[in-house]
Amino acid sequence: MPRLRLALAQTNPILGDLTGNSAQILNAAWKAALAGADILALGEMALTGYPIEDLAARPSFLTNSRIAVNTLAKSLQDAGLGDLVVVVGHPDGPYEPRLLGSSNAPTAIAQNRASVLQHGHVKAGYTKHHLPNYSVFDEYRTFIAGDELLVLRIKGVDVALLICEDLWRDGGPVERVLTADAGLLLVINASPFERDKDEVRLPLVTRRAVETDTIVAYVNIVGGQDDLVFDGDSVVVDGNGTILARAPQFEPHLLVVDVDPAAATNAELPDNVVRVELADAHPPTEAISADIAVLPDDREQLWNALVLGLRDYVEKNEFPSVILGVSGGIDSAVCAAIAADALGPDRVWGVSMPSRYSSEHSRGDAEVLAENIGFHYSVEAIADLVLPVETQLALDGTAAENLQARIRGIILMGLSNMRGHLVLTTGNKTELSVGYSTIYGDSAGGFAPIKDVPKLLVWELARWRNEFATRHGETPPIPANSIEKPPSAELRPDQTDQDTLPPYDVLDAILDAYVSRNLGREDVIALGFDAETVDFVTRLVDRAEWKRRQGAIGPKISGMAFGRDRRLPITYRPNDV
Amino acid sequence: MPRLRLALAQTNPILGDLTGNSAQILNAAWKAALAGADILALGEMALTGYPIEDLAARPSFLTNSRIAVNTLAKSLQDAGLGDLVVVVGHPDGPYEPRLLGSSNAPTAIAQNRASVLQHGHVKAGYTKHHLPNYSVFDEYRTFIAGDELLVLRIKGVDVALLICEDLWRDGGPVERVLTADAGLLLVINASPFERDKDEVRLPLVTRRAVETDTIVAYVNIVGGQDDLVFDGDSVVVDGNGTILARAPQFEPHLLVVDVDPAAATNAELPDNVVRVELADAHPPTEAISADIAVLPDDREQLWNALVLGLRDYVEKNEFPSVILGVSGGIDSAVCAAIAADALGPDRVWGVSMPSRYSSEHSRGDAEVLAENIGFHYSVEAIADLVLPVETQLALDGTAAENLQARIRGIILMGLSNMRGHLVLTTGNKTELSVGYSTIYGDSAGGFAPIKDVPKLLVWELARWRNEFATRHGETPPIPANSIEKPPSAELRPDQTDQDTLPPYDVLDAILDAYVSRNLGREDVIALGFDAETVDFVTRLVDRAEWKRRQGAIGPKISGMAFGRDRRLPITYRPNDV
Repeated sequence: MPRLRLALAQTNPILGDLTGNSAQILNAAWKAALAGADILALGEMALTGYPIEDLAARPSFLTNSRIAVNTLAKSLQDAGLGDLVVVVGHPDGPYEPRLLGSSNAPTAIAQNRASVLQHGHVKAGYTKHHLPNYSVFDEYRTFIAGDELLVLRIKGVDVALLICEDLWRDGGPVERVLTADAGLLLVINASPFERDKDEVRLPLVTRRAVETDTIVAYVNIVGGQDDLVFDGDSVVVDGNGTILARAPQFEPHLLVVDVDPAAATNAELPDNVVRVELADAHPPTEAISADIAVLPDDREQLWNALVLGLRDYVEKNEFPSVILGVSGGIDSAVCAAIAADALGPDRVWGVSMPSRYSSEHSRGDAEVLAENIGFHYSVEAIADLVLPVETQLALDGTAAENLQARIRGIILMGLSNMRGHLVLTTGNKTELSVGYSTIYGDSAGGFAPIKDVPKLLVWELARWRNEFATRHGETPPIPANSIEKPPSAELRPDQTDQDTLPPYDVLDAILDAYVSRNLGREDVIALGFDAETVDFVTRLVDRAEWKRRQGAIGPKISGMAFGRDRRLPITYRPNDV
Repeated sequence: MPRLRLALAQTNPILGDLTGNSAQILNAAWKAALAGADILALGEMALTGYPIEDLAARPSFLTNSRIAVNTLAKSLQDAGLGDLVVVVGHPDGPYEPRLLGSSNAPTAIAQNRASVLQHGHVKAGYTKHHLPNYSVFDEYRTFIAGDELLVLRIKGVDVALLICEDLWRDGGPVERVLTADAGLLLVINASPFERDKDEVRLPLVTRRAVETDTIVAYVNIVGGQDDLVFDGDSVVVDGNGTILARAPQFEPHLLVVDVDPAAATNAELPDNVVRVELADAHPPTEAISADIAVLPDDREQLWNALVLGLRDYVEKNEFPSVILGVSGGIDSAVCAAIAADALGPDRVWGVSMPSRYSSEHSRGDAEVLAENIGFHYSVEAIADLVLPVETQLALDGTAAENLQARIRGIILMGLSNMRGHLVLTTGNKTELSVGYSTIYGDSAGGFAPIKDVPKLLVWELARWRNEFATRHGETPPIPANSIEKPPSAELRPDQTDQDTLPPYDVLDAILDAYVSRNLGREDVIALGFDAETVDFVTRLVDRAEWKRRQGAIGPKISGMAFGRDRRLPITYRPNDV
């Protein structure tokens, strides 16, 4: 059997940054060549970042991407790395618009492409066949599908290329790869993290490897891009379903592994399959042993996703620091801990903004939090700022409660405008679901670290983070009191969340059914919940859609995040009883 | 030739309101039957409203829609209207999910359907073939495509059914209809308004009629749904390209017309075409003459779209009234005039919120506006509310300017919370493009009436509205001074917009190229603009994406509106030079 040395690079591209992303790739190529690799594979759209959204319809964006691919090929050659076969994902175009009916409708002019570089040139290319257009994906909107399969003959091995969704669909490219007798299936991906994704993705890769009796090499990008977090977790599995190599989650990594695929036969190729012969990169060297990363437990994965999502939003958008209100409550405590883990405590500013209704223990808990974590801490009392507005406008009731939250929003935005901080808004998914927040008040901010974390999970993650600290001999960041006390917005005396909302265990369960699983009210009631509570909750969810539309983005960690994952109308009069 | 009497009802559905929408349809059926119609056709999704977005993935929503169709058929029969053939659009399902790869990905379970009702039953149905998935449309996400064509034989005429996009695509259903020798092509639509849409839509309908030598009856819904405004403009065109009937834009209407289509032949039907014979509705009656509406000029169409968009958002979401800040400037003046036209001045509250930098003429202009229009007018000076915050936080520069705008936002939101007003935010498209607004300040609000109107067009519409008033012997609503004076945010002494921004004629032209036509910076420069100005503007546009994501919705009137029409990343480091 021939032996190939594969290098899979999970890079962290910045969207649009062709120069920076190319430099990352060149860097990976150096390491791969030094490690004696025959092939270096990068993720889907590693050259531009993913998703490019409607930049796919901007001709110059495509032209520049194409130029960058050619420049990259030349740079590799100039660096003396021309022998290495480099497979890189990028948008390609502009092509003639796919003809649709309406003459003034934007139409796809781009392809989702993998280019194969060697000796200073683009030697071959593959265009993604299957364009996902569900959940957070809009690829049928942005790309033209390919219909040709590519097989690369390298060192006597036939290597078939696929891109992401191609691997997921039964039939199609996978079927034809099987017929083409390829020894290695190389799949480049931009597959975002969500909870338990590894319980779907790895079994799929394994199943495909076993089905086709082929080695499957799966490389994914890493990093945060707006509301998506790519987790890497690149993996190589052989035809017996054995994991040969696995990269860690949530960090850039170069995974190098030796594989022994079946030798190429000269069987006739099926229709629409192109075979390209490439020169050998390297003579065989001594066998190496590959990394096989072990994934951490569920809560650690979630925490890492939240940390990376925030860090990359801050770094890629070049914010010097973040600021958030710390109330002494659990949500802001968890956000502060995530921010400190992402950026270091020195880039985190926490502001306590007590009102006349804030309890002593709240201020104390915020202070303890600041001490535990070591972020910059200050206090801005709001009473003197609230009173003039309240008096002049004669506000009371909810209007007066919202005013307090809005004055806090003004404080954080004012400090942000003075010093350049990114404002974090600390609402959790449960609050967002039912609209239990003040728009332009506590919802003000550019990034929402826990917007996809339901309340019960916020508590769970807080406990986990403290335990993790204890295990590592560090101070648990989150004050026990913030975890234990009954949650309250403290906008009026002795208020608790449960004055207004059902108990959180009931609420989160109803929201899971209505929001995450998109069940109708009848179907939610059929699960065994009280009809009145279901009506109350679903009505709140429907009515809060306008607020959610105006909310900050935050990292998706669930199978159904608010934002591009769940698209529902604001104007909606449910009348389906 | 046989004669058919067609009734096309452009109803204004409320999304999800099956009961109310069914009542509108029953009402149309009464009128159609009294007018002696054989067939009544309603728009695409007239039963539920359009677009239903991810409600298409909620099983109970589909089940209830199906129940509502059957109930409607029975109600028609019970009302003694059973002979009338009623064609109505609705979502249908749930079907087995279309299998995609990822096991936890939501998949389409709905069809976009036209049902044919007669004698208390659903006699036949047609499923849309071509699913638009560009611009504001996401139908490939939400629906399963059909592949069967339906021909209804009524009074010896073969009537073929199509749904919206089916008519636009060359080949496909239209081709097969031609082969099927239908005498009448009945197309039900949910086609949103945009500027010059009638210059595309009517020629298309005409071309199809002439190509197929068939009468084409095109029925569209009407009304505002979030950011979309459906304009009606239903039309019937014969095989010579002659307009036989046309409904007015932007209002519900029942269009009744006699047509003389070719008699059905018994030619063999192509594959996948089903013919259903229906009973005759009525004996022939005396010929009637149909309405042929004439469309008003461009600016009146745009104004009407803005008025209907706002009115329907308010009415369908059951707001009692609206409130907005009136600064004396052109944007808030135009918004106030739109609001008064939409709701009557008695449901409009205008608040002047002068600061220490507000000029005397600004307050005067706002007052004149209020007098001209007759809305509720009050003054809330902001100096005493700004000062305590400014002092406590030591804000200056932009931070202090933003503070003024945010205090105004707090005032409007506070009054809204007290009285239930919908807050209107008065930013125009040019401002939104370059981020020339204060987030949580002047951008605060639930609806943005002119968010898709560039600054130059705001002036043009203001002038048009005043001329319109003069022509009709009414007081021009917008003070001449608000139109003539140089625009200013008045956040510091003697400020004008042009201190910060290029002249509006240059700015709007660059934005048209960069935003509306999605050209890259090089391609914009190639149009003849100064490179430095282009870089300045495009950079502002890119950097304001996070603000736009948090902005209020407002009616789309252009070919490229912000929101679901233009989807671009926030995190984006353009580096394509």
